[in-house]
Amino acid sequence: MDPWRTAIATSDATNIWVRGHAVTSLMREATFTDMIVLLHLGRLPSPGERRLLDAVLIGVADHGSGAPSCATARLAASGNRASISSAVAAGILAIGDDHGGAGSNCMELIAEGLGAAARDGLTPAAAAARTVDGAVAARRRLPGLGHRVHTTDPRVKVLFDMARAEGVAGDGIAFMEALEAEARTRIKPLPMNIDGALAAVLHDMGFPPPAGKFIFIIGRVAGLTAEVAEEYLREKPMRIKFDVQYDGVPPRRE
Amino acid sequence: MDPWRTAIATSDATNIWVRGHAVTSLMREATFTDMIVLLHLGRLPSPGERRLLDAVLIGVADHGSGAPSCATARLAASGNRASISSAVAAGILAIGDDHGGAGSNCMELIAEGLGAAARDGLTPAAAAARTVDGAVAARRRLPGLGHRVHTTDPRVKVLFDMARAEGVAGDGIAFMEALEAEARTRIKPLPMNIDGALAAVLHDMGFPPPAGKFIFIIGRVAGLTAEVAEEYLREKPMRIKFDVQYDGVPPRRE
Amino acid sequence: MDPWRTAIATSDATNIWVRGHAVTSLMREATFTDMIVLLHLGRLPSPGERRLLDAVLIGVADHGSGAPSCATARLAASGNRASISSAVAAGILAIGDDHGGAGSNCMELIAEGLGAAARDGLTPAAAAARTVDGAVAARRRLPGLGHRVHTTDPRVKVLFDMARAEGVAGDGIAFMEALEAEARTRIKPLPMNIDGALAAVLHDMGFPPPAGKFIFIIGRVAGLTAEVAEEYLREKPMRIKFDVQYDGVPPRRE
Amino acid sequence: MDPWRTAIATSDATNIWVRGHAVTSLMREATFTDMIVLLHLGRLPSPGERRLLDAVLIGVADHGSGAPSCATARLAASGNRASISSAVAAGILAIGDDHGGAGSNCMELIAEGLGAAARDGLTPAAAAARTVDGAVAARRRLPGLGHRVHTTDPRVKVLFDMARAEGVAGDGIAFMEALEAEARTRIKPLPMNIDGALAAVLHDMGFPPPAGKFIFIIGRVAGLTAEVAEEYLREKPMRIKFDVQYDGVPPRRE
Repeated sequence: MDPWRTAIATSDATNIWVRGHAVTSLMREATFTDMIVLLHLGRLPSPGERRLLDAVLIGVADHGSGAPSCATARLAASGNRASISSAVAAGILAIGDDHGGAGSNCMELIAEGLGAAARDGLTPAAAAARTVDGAVAARRRLPGLGHRVHTTDPRVKVLFDMARAEGVAGDGIAFMEALEAEARTRIKPLPMNIDGALAAVLHDMGFPPPAGKFIFIIGRVAGLTAEVAEEYLREKPMRIKFDVQYDGVPPRRE
Repeated sequence: MDPWRTAIATSDATNIWVRGHAVTSLMREATFTDMIVLLHLGRLPSPGERRLLDAVLIGVADHGSGAPSCATARLAASGNRASISSAVAAGILAIGDDHGGAGSNCMELIAEGLGAAARDGLTPAAAAARTVDGAVAARRRLPGLGHRVHTTDPRVKVLFDMARAEGVAGDGIAFMEALEAEARTRIKPLPMNIDGALAAVLHDMGFPPPAGKFIFIIGRVAGLTAEVAEEYLREKPMRIKFDVQYDGVPPRRE
Repeated sequence: MDPWRTAIATSDATNIWVRGHAVTSLMREATFTDMIVLLHLGRLPSPGERRLLDAVLIGVADHGSGAPSCATARLAASGNRASISSAVAAGILAIGDDHGGAGSNCMELIAEGLGAAARDGLTPAAAAARTVDGAVAARRRLPGLGHRVHTTDPRVKVLFDMARAEGVAGDGIAFMEALEAEARTRIKPLPMNIDGALAAVLHDMGFPPPAGKFIFIIGRVAGLTAEVAEEYLREKPMRIKFDVQYDGVPPRRE
Repeated sequence: MDPWRTAIATSDATNIWVRGHAVTSLMREATFTDMIVLLHLGRLPSPGERRLLDAVLIGVADHGSGAPSCATARLAASGNRASISSAVAAGILAIGDDHGGAGSNCMELIAEGLGAAARDGLTPAAAAARTVDGAVAARRRLPGLGHRVHTTDPRVKVLFDMARAEGVAGDGIAFMEALEAEARTRIKPLPMNIDGALAAVLHDMGFPPPAGKFIFIIGRVAGLTAEVAEEYLREKPMRIKFDVQYDGVPPRRE
């Protein structure tokens, strides 16, 4: 275990550097979103990339207190009000493949689809068609398409329009748009969701697939902290959920 | 940070020892509850202490899916089904001063009360009366008394009867019984709850105050794991709580 | 999300039941290990099963402060001493496929192997041979075999001897012993580890594969709580790991 | 527990609003840092406030892999590589009063000091002198002053210069500067650290004391995610810390 190696941050008695940049320079000249790109990609973003990542982070920050991550954070806060980090961490623990994690899976789909396309000289659209074929044959759901609440996710168009206006749109967006169109024809209308749009945009910025979850978590922490702060301010400790129906073996009377 | 020191466990290529005992001997001869005592107190329990700690652990293991710890674990499981440890950890994070943590606070109250009593030559009952005086004067709630659901917590009498039958009952139990009686006279009927009984029993076994939380967590993990297992088996992913009422500033129409 | 259903616990104003048993009866008559079986399997264990599960839980409780789970818990405790549940939860979060999670994967291997064997009328040994064939062909590692520290894991023999003496040994143990023998012949000597032994024993007691992780977590929490208690007692806050070597892009001088 | 109330976010089939703003408008026009202010304070920041909060978030994002939060996240990642959210959550759990939490405590000190000053008609400097008197009398450490690694924390001057240039500097900064000067005279040179500077700046922007921890967590998550990503990319699973010295009771030989 010892010593550890890192290429992220180092410091001496009076300086801290991240990816080689003095933190003090970054504090003067960069935005937090720049810092996220620097930490993860080792370079600062272009202005267009910065705007796009800002939009992604805003888009996933909060969607209502009833989402698993927010509700988990509030319940943990309710039992353990003295520990802010416990409640935020509990909220993050609800993030996974079923909630907030589809972006990573979708980025893998994009990377695989476009990788195969590059080897075989296909367009992104042809690659997407092949991906839908595979999903239909294997009866597998396609990540990034479909939504429980929204018929049309309003955030998708905003992201893609912005990506085009800023010159960031690339094969990832082309692939996901073709995927949505193919799925509509071959399966049923499954409008792209924020995970799919986030995946396309992050792919086109050069992020690797795990970043789908990392970026979702970074954005959602802004919302989780606000939800926990509101729980402390507005609610009494110790929420108990009373509408639980017991349907197990009957209680033994003694 | 290096090297670390520990007095808990060590091993060589073919042996593991905990508190000096070979793990293989413990596996053959001890119970898990013995192991908990050995890990925390550095000694094995008497048969009576073992029975009493078994009863404490059973008493706090599960009390219904709607308690903050269980509901938090189930919600985390709902969003992130691939990670068993995430859901269990989220449940533990809901445990704090407001849920499952009163035992530790109550153990501190007992230790302070009995410590002051020893200095001043008071009985546990007199010490408890002084503690109630202090709480009334400071308008402070007494940990270990009162319950949201139960008028009488059925687990208290079982623990105290068992402690007396097994010869484990000591000043901690005497103090808590006097505290309940004094509070009934001076404040209002506040029946002792499981946290108060757990605190008294653990005090009389020689555990320090933080053990109130540690032992609660150990017991509750048995229930949390079962709750998470049931969530996976019986429910679909991604529970969303829909009955959330928004009462913030009105949505802007654009 | 509402109402929730559960078959685990229910209560009224003066009683709590778990799997239909009054908690007060369990407190008087059962051990904590019985309670774990009751919560997870819906039935109480035989005396032999109880002894075996005690041995499993003891065997995984603690193995040294340097294991990822224990070191994670101690570091979290070091930065955040006010929150006991945070440190314990952090330790649990280090438990996964790479640490403490092989038991679940091994239980799936056993269930698949024996399931296929039952369909094809094979003995457990023949099923194990087929499993090794598959792993060799796919260049896949076999969970439950091999260990980083121990040449022979001393806990394996204890568990299997006890399982035989108590009449609990079944096809799971037979399968894992055959797997170890086949792997020695076909691959190289890979002594069975505690995860493999735990998997065989839990399989033979009727636990489903996820229980490999659940039971490991329950046992390890006993050790994690002791490690955290020792961290508070013996160490100052805020351990910083100083032997970190930076090998990234050179710091920019300004 | 039902229904829940919130003033943060709401949505219908095609829109999401946060604090009354359409998320799609925010995505087009705001930065992620704006969103953090909106979520926590219910209003968008001024350009100067935005720049200052960007600087705060950059300043706390990462300081080296050996800090408790980063080391905890990496160890958790090492044992449980399949779960991104587990590792990030574990890192957050190391954040508390001893690491990253001093900002909140310092904000409480500022609020108390300035509150008392307002009642008694004192200047911030006179209030700071009184706070130092109190700390000296009670032998209490002053949060926000002193650092384990840096003789001068380079981030403090950057933040305060920027706060003055942007017109955001207020009584919080005046109080903390007076506190540092008083402590130097009355106790010893204790240079202000990033927690103290963060506290002063957040106070002057109107954040309540718990925001000290919330904002630290939001900034640090950017670093934690990068540390975890690096752990996956560069290291093998299952780091074990081998330099642990056992100093407990001697192992029993059997």
